[in-house]
Amino acid sequence: MRDFSADPSPLALNTATLGHNMDGRGAGWSPERLIDACAARGFGGIVFWRREIGGRAVEIGNRVRDAGMAVTGLCRAPFLVGPMAPKGRSAVMGDFCAAIDMAAGLGAPVLTIVVGGVEPGTRGVVESLKRVTDRVAEAAPYAAARGVKLALEPLNPVYGGDRSCLTTTRDALDICDAIGAPNLGVAIDVYHVWWDTDLPRQLARAGTRIFGFHLCDWLADTTDFLLDRGMMGDGVADLRALRAGVEGAGYRGACEVEIFSAKTWWTREPAEVLDVILQRFATVC
Amino acid sequence: MRDFSADPSPLALNTATLGHNMDGRGAGWSPERLIDACAARGFGGIVFWRREIGGRAVEIGNRVRDAGMAVTGLCRAPFLVGPMAPKGRSAVMGDFCAAIDMAAGLGAPVLTIVVGGVEPGTRGVVESLKRVTDRVAEAAPYAAARGVKLALEPLNPVYGGDRSCLTTTRDALDICDAIGAPNLGVAIDVYHVWWDTDLPRQLARAGTRIFGFHLCDWLADTTDFLLDRGMMGDGVADLRALRAGVEGAGYRGACEVEIFSAKTWWTREPAEVLDVILQRFATVC
Repeated sequence: MRDFSADPSPLALNTATLGHNMDGRGAGWSPERLIDACAARGFGGIVFWRREIGGRAVEIGNRVRDAGMAVTGLCRAPFLVGPMAPKGRSAVMGDFCAAIDMAAGLGAPVLTIVVGGVEPGTRGVVESLKRVTDRVAEAAPYAAARGVKLALEPLNPVYGGDRSCLTTTRDALDICDAIGAPNLGVAIDVYHVWWDTDLPRQLARAGTRIFGFHLCDWLADTTDFLLDRGMMGDGVADLRALRAGVEGAGYRGACEVEIFSAKTWWTREPAEVLDVILQRFATVC
Repeated sequence: MRDFSADPSPLALNTATLGHNMDGRGAGWSPERLIDACAARGFGGIVFWRREIGGRAVEIGNRVRDAGMAVTGLCRAPFLVGPMAPKGRSAVMGDFCAAIDMAAGLGAPVLTIVVGGVEPGTRGVVESLKRVTDRVAEAAPYAAARGVKLALEPLNPVYGGDRSCLTTTRDALDICDAIGAPNLGVAIDVYHVWWDTDLPRQLARAGTRIFGFHLCDWLADTTDFLLDRGMMGDGVADLRALRAGVEGAGYRGACEVEIFSAKTWWTREPAEVLDVILQRFATVC
């Protein structure tokens, strides 16, 4: 395993960690201010959300690189299925391509896909996963032509109804196998997979198809599954074992900190949050 | 598959469905009133919670049978591990045995086990599951001697931290295999397993080791994972496919309705809730 105790360069900040998406309550930091703050602390990368980029993808991507960092990913493709997806297949695919274009413009190597929930009018996840497969298969060549990898992110089953009918790394790899595109892989997020005893086997199966590794922690007594993720070290996920799994499979990419935390971390000063992340990354990840 | 359209006899009521455990806000129905209401509607069984029984296990069990029904199960063993378990192994095992005794007194063939969360001082689920295995292995012969079967119930991974480090049917069957006791099996609850694409394979593996099947539904837009379960037909779980799986494995036991629903069903008149259950059981289960 890589030694992070004195090297923060594998560390990437997902901007959600600073509360960007809490309407009216976010830190309000511009991408530029955020880039400077991360660069000053030795972070190696940043992952933006589309809403922060607007028409400035090329400009912001260059700004990150000028600061000595990389844009390691972009959040995210639209929901492809389910009650929260754009209405109709063509609307979904149009927005999917727009997200790919933005990733290309930013110079982000990976676009994360949260697939969406159960398709209205259907039950269970089987039919929805078929439609996901169909839509990802269509988008994969478009992304490949623009140098963008697609990372299917399985979400904790608590999101199965409306946000992600894709709940396990096994299912994500089944879709990757079915499509067989070289630019299609998975993103492994501690929050979503920490409980899965099948994960070690699936990570070995994934091999070089792990395109992202997301850090946070699972708080044992959490009561809010949307905005109560823990800082690394504050929960019960076995962070070292999880990283050993992804690195054992060959992963050497960024470790992306993504913490939605309305009552704790989003109420702190962004600079303080970044300092805590650095310290935890060096000691418990 | 069995035809329930005109036969409610496989239907069992888990008393939690009427809000028994909402302190100060429950229906306040005595076990006797509940027994009469279920019997009058043709329910075949009742599953009680320990707090409702106190020292009256034999009396209440006989009352159920006199009404022409069966006590189909008892909720539940204490948490065996994790932050909410009794403190210390001997306290856990003492209460575990007390729960088994109560099941025997009631004439309940099955005691449900919710195993508890991640053991304090450990990370991930592996060590906690080992301790669960150790404790269930010790209790299984005690239960067998009293004619009680033990049903390990995997819970939705959202409960992984504090209520159940056991989150999949696969893990539950791994524990059953490791212990090898003939009175040890699993309980399959729609709320906890509806998302699991590995379930059909695991149900086939389980075979005659399925000791319970619990009905409710998963509401697509749920925001509360403690007290917001849906009535059958109101969510996105594929109830028919799930039942086909358990019956395909050989299950012919009760279908137990267990709905924790603080804002919806617990606010309705218990008699009305029972009527809705009957109607849904005949049409969508």
